[in-house]
Amino acid sequence: MLKFGFVNKSNMCLLTDLYELTMAQVYLKDNMTKTAVFDFYIRPTEKRSFFINSGLEQLLYYLENIKFTDEDLDYLKSLGFEDFFLDYLKNFKFTGNVYAIEEGQVIFPNEPVVQIEAPLPEAQIIETFLINTLQHPILVATKAVRCYIAGKGEKVLVDFGLRRAHGTDAGMKAARASYIGGFAGTSNVLAGKEYGIPVFGTMAHSFILAYGDEEKAFEAFAKMYPDKTIFLIDTFNTVEGAKKAVEVAKKLGMKTFRGVRLDSGDLVKLSKEVRKILDEAGYEDAKIIASGGINEYVIKDHIEKNAPIDGYGVGTELVVSADLPYLDCAYKLVEYDSRPVMKFSPKKATLPSKKQVYRFYENGKFKKDIICLYDEKFDGTPLLEKVMENGEICTDLPSLEKIREKAIENVSKLPENLLKIGNEELYIPEISEKMQELVEELKKEYLNA
Amino acid sequence: MLKFGFVNKSNMCLLTDLYELTMAQVYLKDNMTKTAVFDFYIRPTEKRSFFINSGLEQLLYYLENIKFTDEDLDYLKSLGFEDFFLDYLKNFKFTGNVYAIEEGQVIFPNEPVVQIEAPLPEAQIIETFLINTLQHPILVATKAVRCYIAGKGEKVLVDFGLRRAHGTDAGMKAARASYIGGFAGTSNVLAGKEYGIPVFGTMAHSFILAYGDEEKAFEAFAKMYPDKTIFLIDTFNTVEGAKKAVEVAKKLGMKTFRGVRLDSGDLVKLSKEVRKILDEAGYEDAKIIASGGINEYVIKDHIEKNAPIDGYGVGTELVVSADLPYLDCAYKLVEYDSRPVMKFSPKKATLPSKKQVYRFYENGKFKKDIICLYDEKFDGTPLLEKVMENGEICTDLPSLEKIREKAIENVSKLPENLLKIGNEELYIPEISEKMQELVEELKKEYLNA
Repeated sequence: MLKFGFVNKSNMCLLTDLYELTMAQVYLKDNMTKTAVFDFYIRPTEKRSFFINSGLEQLLYYLENIKFTDEDLDYLKSLGFEDFFLDYLKNFKFTGNVYAIEEGQVIFPNEPVVQIEAPLPEAQIIETFLINTLQHPILVATKAVRCYIAGKGEKVLVDFGLRRAHGTDAGMKAARASYIGGFAGTSNVLAGKEYGIPVFGTMAHSFILAYGDEEKAFEAFAKMYPDKTIFLIDTFNTVEGAKKAVEVAKKLGMKTFRGVRLDSGDLVKLSKEVRKILDEAGYEDAKIIASGGINEYVIKDHIEKNAPIDGYGVGTELVVSADLPYLDCAYKLVEYDSRPVMKFSPKKATLPSKKQVYRFYENGKFKKDIICLYDEKFDGTPLLEKVMENGEICTDLPSLEKIREKAIENVSKLPENLLKIGNEELYIPEISEKMQELVEELKKEYLNA
Repeated sequence: MLKFGFVNKSNMCLLTDLYELTMAQVYLKDNMTKTAVFDFYIRPTEKRSFFINSGLEQLLYYLENIKFTDEDLDYLKSLGFEDFFLDYLKNFKFTGNVYAIEEGQVIFPNEPVVQIEAPLPEAQIIETFLINTLQHPILVATKAVRCYIAGKGEKVLVDFGLRRAHGTDAGMKAARASYIGGFAGTSNVLAGKEYGIPVFGTMAHSFILAYGDEEKAFEAFAKMYPDKTIFLIDTFNTVEGAKKAVEVAKKLGMKTFRGVRLDSGDLVKLSKEVRKILDEAGYEDAKIIASGGINEYVIKDHIEKNAPIDGYGVGTELVVSADLPYLDCAYKLVEYDSRPVMKFSPKKATLPSKKQVYRFYENGKFKKDIICLYDEKFDGTPLLEKVMENGEICTDLPSLEKIREKAIENVSKLPENLLKIGNEELYIPEISEKMQELVEELKKEYLNA
């Protein structure tokens, strides 16, 4: 009766747009089952100079495990799908190759982040889930890195966003992606358990209100967690709250405590006042953590104003990527049966053919990317590597820790102009000459232009 | 090894912020286990005159089923939680009462949409999941109804957003919530299966490109689905695509076909040209469907410009609620052990005490709401009803169809000034005199003001 609608390993095959199946049935009927190549890429936006790749592991999990159960097939039959197609789905397994840029790598618009090479119906059926699985993690990893950059890598950043994430899965993905993007951890306990991400947490206003006054609440908490206490001090008046935190710590004979959290008001002004109170009481070690409406722009502003804030709980704006809640991203057919194809729709034209992306560095810093045909060779670093062959993972996937390290290293290689927070500079990769020639050829062929 | 991180019935207990558990352990230790009342409510935003409630059924599912497994407890032990608390969690069951405004009802800022009355640790532990479960569905149901209003209830609206939803669960919730908000269906097959929502789908550009030309692709599709064909006509040139659709239909001797879809370009201009082509060919019945960047503002603009568009696929902007990707919503303690409490943080003050909301109509139209103390009686319609008692659902939950019907009916009762799309008027419910007196009393008590 009562239904949640959880998505899991056994029903994820149906988490797809109906038209993927509608088209696949026609492909099967017409023997349109030759190898297709699809690109997943991001179109340019003025709000981001670059993106951080994330979500590949979840995509590979899906591709390795997708299958249709009898219950799924019964439902599809009820929608009118034909028996020959249901038979095909009954034995469905993804058998294709996947070329991908690694998680934690810097990516730019128009670059194929993931390239699928598989029999056309397979490559088509996986489209919706693929985009769903990649878009949000890329958004969040990118937003996280921007917070990291704004904080000059010196602030402890924690994902507080689970409650405001769009559903349960977004909460999990945001925790993983923000960790990749340089965050220190998450408040999300399940993400801690599933991904081994450090978990953080303090107290809520309700805790203070339930006890009725701050002293009582602070004391109860500090007694239970002497080594971990972060007092939430803004329930009534932040400066008074700081004084009470200090009083309680003194009363309990605490030589130090973890810190205090400010969740409202003028954080720059208040953090300076609170820092003074803590220092004068001899609690120089106690940290000041801020939360409430935090994003990369706020952190940048705080740094410019020398706010003595040591760390941030970044919630809503991180997990929904508030200033850019979606990517203009696409999954497009670029080759079928060795024939390069492209789409000419206004503002939505695609680059044809199976591809490679080469990255060039100069003096250890990023210089440029070139998007080229797959067989072209350049004296740079190729970014797309084969991660799945005939439906099996064919590479050692890095640990989450490793991905995070690499992400921070990759970002450190970006030049200053691409690291700006506010007034972002747009970088568009170059297109190789051969790729340009191919585009012109196809334009002539299709549009007689 | 490879992990997706799915959330499901057996691990959802850990999909919570660490501090909920941290606080609960202190509550247990201190015997702070008396009844608490928490309100979930939305703070005002200038972007919405009203909201549509959604997500209650998923919340109740969670509350009925939340429990901690041994594996969960092992993980929590590794985080340092103490044995007395782990014992408590081992036997954890939500035993509280839930008062809620029904799904599909119009809700306004500051009104308790859901009110939880439970032993303090229980009411605390469920906080994060509760907000996560309610926020996104309310956002999407509201966005959907705004599209419905913009289209004057005459357009066929379909959720195309799964791919751009923030993760798998958001895709499911968006399908359900948009259906509540007056949509005709979704492209999401799993949502169709799980919730019984009608599913829709046509073809993608990749379908055209794989065949290499529109005639071949259109013909293959129309042969397979003679009764359901919607031709996607903008891959190369929309007007030429319309002509080809007509040619193929004639060639196959089709007396009619479902329609055509436009996904790019100047939709107003193109839809008029395409309508003419269809009509002149005798396909007056064929519908024109538009997609690509659709939202309530676009639909309103199309109506003002008399674009002959019969329906819309609304994707990204719907499922991420692009112009308002998060609600400033909160779950706040308002009463503990029969003592009303409130928070005074700047811009985040709360209304104290267990509450009721009364709605008043005049000549069949919405007149006003009053937020009052729970025991107050007014000559209006009380909106909060008890839906769960001692952890058990105590009411007949309406079907999704019924919720959808009610939502459309509820919106039809709103006055013109609250139905504007663009230049929204903000409506803030009244506060009863007794509630105001209580607020003043508490202010004096806490702030000596």
